[in-house]
Amino acid sequence: MKGFKFSGIKAGIKTKDAMDLGIIFSERPARAAALFTQNQVVAAPVVLGRERIKTGLCQAIVVNSGNANCFTGTKGLADAEKTAVLAARALGIPPELVMVSSTGVIGAPLPMDKIEKGIPELVSNMGSDGTEAFATAILTTDLSPKISTRTCRVKGGEFTITGVAKGSGMIKPNMATMLAFVMTDLDIPSTSLQACLKKACDRSFNRISVDGDTSTNDTVVALANGMSNAVLEDSDDSIEFQRLLDEVLLDLSKKVVRDGEGATKLVKILVKGAKTPEDALKVADTVAQSNLVKTAVYGEDPNWGRIVAAAGRSGAQMDPEKLDLKFGDVALVEAGVWLGKAAEIEAAEIMKDEEIELVLDLNIGEYSDWYLFCDFSENYVKINADYRS
Amino acid sequence: MKGFKFSGIKAGIKTKDAMDLGIIFSERPARAAALFTQNQVVAAPVVLGRERIKTGLCQAIVVNSGNANCFTGTKGLADAEKTAVLAARALGIPPELVMVSSTGVIGAPLPMDKIEKGIPELVSNMGSDGTEAFATAILTTDLSPKISTRTCRVKGGEFTITGVAKGSGMIKPNMATMLAFVMTDLDIPSTSLQACLKKACDRSFNRISVDGDTSTNDTVVALANGMSNAVLEDSDDSIEFQRLLDEVLLDLSKKVVRDGEGATKLVKILVKGAKTPEDALKVADTVAQSNLVKTAVYGEDPNWGRIVAAAGRSGAQMDPEKLDLKFGDVALVEAGVWLGKAAEIEAAEIMKDEEIELVLDLNIGEYSDWYLFCDFSENYVKINADYRS
Repeated sequence: MKGFKFSGIKAGIKTKDAMDLGIIFSERPARAAALFTQNQVVAAPVVLGRERIKTGLCQAIVVNSGNANCFTGTKGLADAEKTAVLAARALGIPPELVMVSSTGVIGAPLPMDKIEKGIPELVSNMGSDGTEAFATAILTTDLSPKISTRTCRVKGGEFTITGVAKGSGMIKPNMATMLAFVMTDLDIPSTSLQACLKKACDRSFNRISVDGDTSTNDTVVALANGMSNAVLEDSDDSIEFQRLLDEVLLDLSKKVVRDGEGATKLVKILVKGAKTPEDALKVADTVAQSNLVKTAVYGEDPNWGRIVAAAGRSGAQMDPEKLDLKFGDVALVEAGVWLGKAAEIEAAEIMKDEEIELVLDLNIGEYSDWYLFCDFSENYVKINADYRS
Repeated sequence: MKGFKFSGIKAGIKTKDAMDLGIIFSERPARAAALFTQNQVVAAPVVLGRERIKTGLCQAIVVNSGNANCFTGTKGLADAEKTAVLAARALGIPPELVMVSSTGVIGAPLPMDKIEKGIPELVSNMGSDGTEAFATAILTTDLSPKISTRTCRVKGGEFTITGVAKGSGMIKPNMATMLAFVMTDLDIPSTSLQACLKKACDRSFNRISVDGDTSTNDTVVALANGMSNAVLEDSDDSIEFQRLLDEVLLDLSKKVVRDGEGATKLVKILVKGAKTPEDALKVADTVAQSNLVKTAVYGEDPNWGRIVAAAGRSGAQMDPEKLDLKFGDVALVEAGVWLGKAAEIEAAEIMKDEEIELVLDLNIGEYSDWYLFCDFSENYVKINADYRS
């Protein structure tokens, strides 16, 4: 991918010895699009980001982990602005072209001395091979960096999309995920980029949940610097770009769920045959949030009763006597009737897999939707009971 | 309390060696009121109960634990009816006056041979001192029986209210809790009893959550046999009865949450200063459901950031810069500003208590509401990953 550089360093923001400051830099100002959290309590970088994205342009993004810079008042906002100024100075670009993102503990002031000290090293380390260092520097309780890349040839030329995300806890994004950054060297107007990003998020980050909590810092930014000289010449090209962007974001979404706090399994709940699109989503969402379903998945128990009970409380229209439920290829309930112990033993085998698909057919309409979620382990509790200590 | 008998026995329905069949019997037919789950997937006893309650009369309730008799089709409904017939025969009363309740695993057929064998012993064991045996026989993963009793003198005479509940998992009741039975020797029409029961539930069972999952079997039944000869003579008496009923149900609700699966603490979130009553409830509900808040409580961490983040995603109108947040008597946030490390150390002391009150003032209106919830421990995960094995 042409014209993007990355780096990640240890600036000492985290209490443990780990990378915690990263940067994305485009050699020339990129067209920018972004989506932010719908939480009414928002972090300072989100306040600043909402302002800056209005120009449709961005050249650098500075991201720190270990501190969310959220609920930090006017000082928090000044700290976010100062971070942008420090980076702009080191890069020799206007501060208006720098966005910032933060992730970590809510409520503590950003350690500006450490950020100020770290920025020169961060900038001098930048390189086109720095993606992994950047992806590592933005992690919190995640276990592994999350990067997804696709290259594609359209009539207008060849281009690449690379996405980087972090997730792990407080993950039930609403218009965006915890933090995700998507870079492309395609030449595309920021309004088109925004529309494509919105669509792609609705079929990826807006369909995942680790723990049902929407973060205060959720941000996804897309940058298109046009340095590949590829352009979208016609609607076929545009469809191809959307397809590729969807793929990258869905791949990142799966990585976020797979690496959810304490997660051991990735589950897809596919709901079919709903009366309305809203009903399909309600059922998928409710099953994906159910702690009882999630603990059963962790216990490798094909506990279909908890799935139909969650569907029943979702608020969607349904008729229990029409429900079909499959675990992978194994039918466990047909027309509201349990198929017996032998089917359950087969389903228990499916539950041993690391990736599981559940298909619930309401059989009263033609709409479907889905959700990706992870299981719920003792480790989730341990991680979140001890997070600040 | 006059005219009620109870018993509980081991019928062998549970795989472990424990009491699992109970009965409540009134010496004469009682006025009856009931509320049932709003889950669209409902257990056979709920289907039968909704029919039977229409008469406004009931003389006996048979309850089994270890099996929910839910999603068991027409056979399940026939089994519920047969249980009532068997009990009616042993008691010498019409089957129409017998209700049944079940709690336990969803989807397995009720072991009718064991119920048929157990009923004669169940009936011959009945006594006015059998409340504790009954309260024990209806438990599943609960650790202790839940009984609450109040006696009161009104102008019309003296009467007693006794309530028995079981809870533990799949607890976010919607109109009722998992299972609760309220008996009184007061003479009161079933329509008044129904109205009082609805009010009392809205201020008790409908304000608690263990894990956010609404059960398929939720049922609360109130029986008034009039054998104390006390009646409610005027509106003061009626207010006194409502107050007493509220007390009994709230006391049971607290016991249910305190004994929630894996729970170590009982927490009340009180939301004040909301713009509308709905907003107050939304915020209280969202904080009470948040896994991140619940794990922080388990870790005895005054993690106020997670509380304001949950409030922020609740959908209620709010202004982060007006929020006040207290842990017990300790203010941690005032007018949207964190009060610093010293206050947090004080709040950490509060978190060591077994009962904790959180007060979140939105300061933009005059409405308040509350929710009771428990913390979230590794034990919750263990219990629910292993429940059927």
